[in-house]
Amino acid sequence: MLDKDYTFQLKFQVRDYECDMQGVVNHSVYQNYLEHTRHEYLKSVGLDFVRMNEEGIIPHVVRVEIDYKLPLISGDEFISCLNVQLESKIRIVFYQDIYRLSDEKLVTKGVVTGVCLVNGRPRLPESIADLLKK
Amino acid sequence: MLDKDYTFQLKFQVRDYECDMQGVVNHSVYQNYLEHTRHEYLKSVGLDFVRMNEEGIIPHVVRVEIDYKLPLISGDEFISCLNVQLESKIRIVFYQDIYRLSDEKLVTKGVVTGVCLVNGRPRLPESIADLLKK
Amino acid sequence: MLDKDYTFQLKFQVRDYECDMQGVVNHSVYQNYLEHTRHEYLKSVGLDFVRMNEEGIIPHVVRVEIDYKLPLISGDEFISCLNVQLESKIRIVFYQDIYRLSDEKLVTKGVVTGVCLVNGRPRLPESIADLLKK
Amino acid sequence: MLDKDYTFQLKFQVRDYECDMQGVVNHSVYQNYLEHTRHEYLKSVGLDFVRMNEEGIIPHVVRVEIDYKLPLISGDEFISCLNVQLESKIRIVFYQDIYRLSDEKLVTKGVVTGVCLVNGRPRLPESIADLLKK
Repeated sequence: MLDKDYTFQLKFQVRDYECDMQGVVNHSVYQNYLEHTRHEYLKSVGLDFVRMNEEGIIPHVVRVEIDYKLPLISGDEFISCLNVQLESKIRIVFYQDIYRLSDEKLVTKGVVTGVCLVNGRPRLPESIADLLKK
Repeated sequence: MLDKDYTFQLKFQVRDYECDMQGVVNHSVYQNYLEHTRHEYLKSVGLDFVRMNEEGIIPHVVRVEIDYKLPLISGDEFISCLNVQLESKIRIVFYQDIYRLSDEKLVTKGVVTGVCLVNGRPRLPESIADLLKK
Repeated sequence: MLDKDYTFQLKFQVRDYECDMQGVVNHSVYQNYLEHTRHEYLKSVGLDFVRMNEEGIIPHVVRVEIDYKLPLISGDEFISCLNVQLESKIRIVFYQDIYRLSDEKLVTKGVVTGVCLVNGRPRLPESIADLLKK
Repeated sequence: MLDKDYTFQLKFQVRDYECDMQGVVNHSVYQNYLEHTRHEYLKSVGLDFVRMNEEGIIPHVVRVEIDYKLPLISGDEFISCLNVQLESKIRIVFYQDIYRLSDEKLVTKGVVTGVCLVNGRPRLPESIADLLKK
């Protein structure tokens, strides 16, 4: 993992089916990487995405910003890094940076905002907020 | 199509494989919709994405912002709308809104910034700029 | 549509994000085309995939065979054709051929076998079997 | 890895974006798993998929058979196993089985046939055949 100040880091490797006709990872695929990183982070603090949904706590993304700095290509390994911040009583903001492993250069910079719906209304249960604050 | 002020509109229908375990279109899939809309728009003004790449004109996305207002679900039809603006000598900005067809409600609001690389350097050939200004 | 003997036909167009680094539609994407065709066919006879799942009737694929004859490339339009046969009390077999629209050449030949689970056990409700026999 | 007789094994973990509205990995995604496994296997014997394409040796899939025995769900870890056989002067057949890691149960059984095109004609260069026979 990288010697950088993040709450959570996850290593990936590009798979060829993720590359498009330009020979680089299609820009939409980074959202898959970011989502998987968030879900693994949630698991690491004790929150299971599937179970939350079953319990009627429906987390979903309301805004995504991604800056694409460098393309990833076939075979590239990379580290997906995450910090999290509660930015109001209901908004969770994930700061998600991806670095190419070979030279630790920044590949993409993402800011993803999520909210939870509980019984159809935006609400962040305190038990969840506590786990994210650690 | 919708009676709204856009340069280009394209009709889609949600396909079930685009929906995730929450039963809604996965948020990454909207980038596929937006990309397909841009490429079809480019074709409509005489620009072929594949041919541009073959000629060494490599368009690529440098920034994406998407606000998710409403989820699309299985079977939904929607209209993907686009306006385009040149925001410097090299940056093309696409304003891309998606509306659910049934009630014309705004589903997502996207702002996608692209640049072209020509021989590896950022440059927007004038012939292309002219087509986008129309 | 094509002047061929199929129960159901659906027109598609290749989207650039479906193409891989070889510049052709990735072979996994054809399963998406085939699935969407089956679900639209089901809708056309009055069966909604989502509603079936909600009612505890869980259709799923148990076997897929696909022969890849010709590659589809960027911009290609194609017709996805389907015949269906009940091959036992519980197995539904879909014969699914894809033709390139420009020259009506056969692109892929698929045979997809599905079964339904009702309360976790393989069973094809008669009301569904009747709709598929028409 | 599993104590089974395969030439190559690769460990994966299901990512939530690969699951569909039924809460299981969509059946098309297994083709992505199988492709990534083949490409990693090729790399392990010294064959790079990207470089082969650049050198005009175009490997592609001509037939896929997959039997779906058990569904993978969110969080599942699995081992994708591969054997390879040359079945004529030009056909390479990959026998690809996927096992759930938790109980080593067989999840899918795939048979994928590939051929190489060299200058547009089916031909398997001897240097490649030799690497696959080992």
